Amino acid sequence: MKQLLIASTSTIHGSGYLDYLLEDLKVFFKSCKTILFIPYARPGGISHDAYTEKAREAFRKINMDLKGIHEFESAAEAINQAEGIFTGGGNTFVLLNHLYKNKCIEALQDAISSGIPYLGTSAGSNICGLTINTTNDMPIVYPPSFKALAFVPFNINPHYLDPIPDTKHMGETRETRIKEFHAYNSFPVIGLREGSWLEVTDKTIILKGVLDARIFEYGKEPYEIKTETTLQHLK
Amino acid sequence: MKQLLIASTSTIHGSGYLDYLLEDLKVFFKSCKTILFIPYARPGGISHDAYTEKAREAFRKINMDLKGIHEFESAAEAINQAEGIFTGGGNTFVLLNHLYKNKCIEALQDAISSGIPYLGTSAGSNICGLTINTTNDMPIVYPPSFKALAFVPFNINPHYLDPIPDTKHMGETRETRIKEFHAYNSFPVIGLREGSWLEVTDKTIILKGVLDARIFEYGKEPYEIKTETTLQHLK
Repeated sequence: MKQLLIASTSTIHGSGYLDYLLEDLKVFFKSCKTILFIPYARPGGISHDAYTEKAREAFRKINMDLKGIHEFESAAEAINQAEGIFTGGGNTFVLLNHLYKNKCIEALQDAISSGIPYLGTSAGSNICGLTINTTNDMPIVYPPSFKALAFVPFNINPHYLDPIPDTKHMGETRETRIKEFHAYNSFPVIGLREGSWLEVTDKTIILKGVLDARIFEYGKEPYEIKTETTLQHLK
Repeated sequence: MKQLLIASTSTIHGSGYLDYLLEDLKVFFKSCKTILFIPYARPGGISHDAYTEKAREAFRKINMDLKGIHEFESAAEAINQAEGIFTGGGNTFVLLNHLYKNKCIEALQDAISSGIPYLGTSAGSNICGLTINTTNDMPIVYPPSFKALAFVPFNINPHYLDPIPDTKHMGETRETRIKEFHAYNSFPVIGLREGSWLEVTDKTIILKGVLDARIFEYGKEPYEIKTETTLQHLK
């Protein structure tokens, strides 16, 4: 039975790394002693070791141990043996590129199909969608494909940002960008605001957290959904 | 003799399309009767025709005609015969993908080497750099490569945005993103604020407009340069 927690961000304004999620993670990972951490997205270019240490500190608060995937000889084998998996945020292109390079895509899909609980934040959530075509990140490396893990039948836009009123900056709003995506792709996109997450249990997908999310479906006006809304209709 | 005008944006806050550049464009394109317009970046997903009409209206103010590249049977041939070229903004991935698909890369490089004046705004400026690894755009299509036209020996970051003070949004700042780029790439990046442009004449590159620009060189702290600074040292 598939079990996923797909979060917009690791950190909400004014609190520590993963703090707002820790109570839920205690329940979500209840069957696990050790979590496998995938630090490939390297936020700010930090090392795999430093990033793993950061995640380890957060999980220590809920008495769970954590091991970095780079500490294993074979990344795919580490995934095969994992009790639970957490992929942290950073750069989505770097993350996906590394997953392809280290032959992790199929291993992750198999693990999640077999019921291993998976937590993603930000870039780690982006890769749960069909493709990374709706990431906000800068394309600092060229991955062999934009196809992602397809754990859910739509795309994610984490850190969803509403238009800033009275801005003088002429860059596109997030909504404009996602509408442009629909000039070339037809699958739905969910804009997850910081503090929201999706809880996936088997075929059930529920919006969690206190905020609304914004849904973009091909050929429709974007619309808001409330927390606790189920999302099975999106595909 | 290479002649380029590489602008951060087509439009500055509170004025019309290209308005802030028109006086300079009159001089820059003085040898041209008709400008070839490349509308491939399709901002907001608009059609090539609609986008070309928008650009045509702006050039009409300085008594120049403009023809869309999509109106020709062969895009490469259109470039070969052009008197002057303007590539408008929109989505950089869509633009570069279309340039590859229509075999325009080499044709553009040849035209610019032979002295045909080229204006780029936003996405049309991004492609003047070595790669599109520093675009701000959403990767809504997968181009065959991120390699760009390499008219200048560094990368461009148009619509450069300073960190927003007191924001509660946890997404990366532009500076953080460009620093992450330097974890994987070593060539310089110029952050061009809206209203700035680069004027390239043969081997001379000068920052124009009233604003400073921000330079990111591998292994150095980012620094500001004043308008009228020359940039030949960047490579």
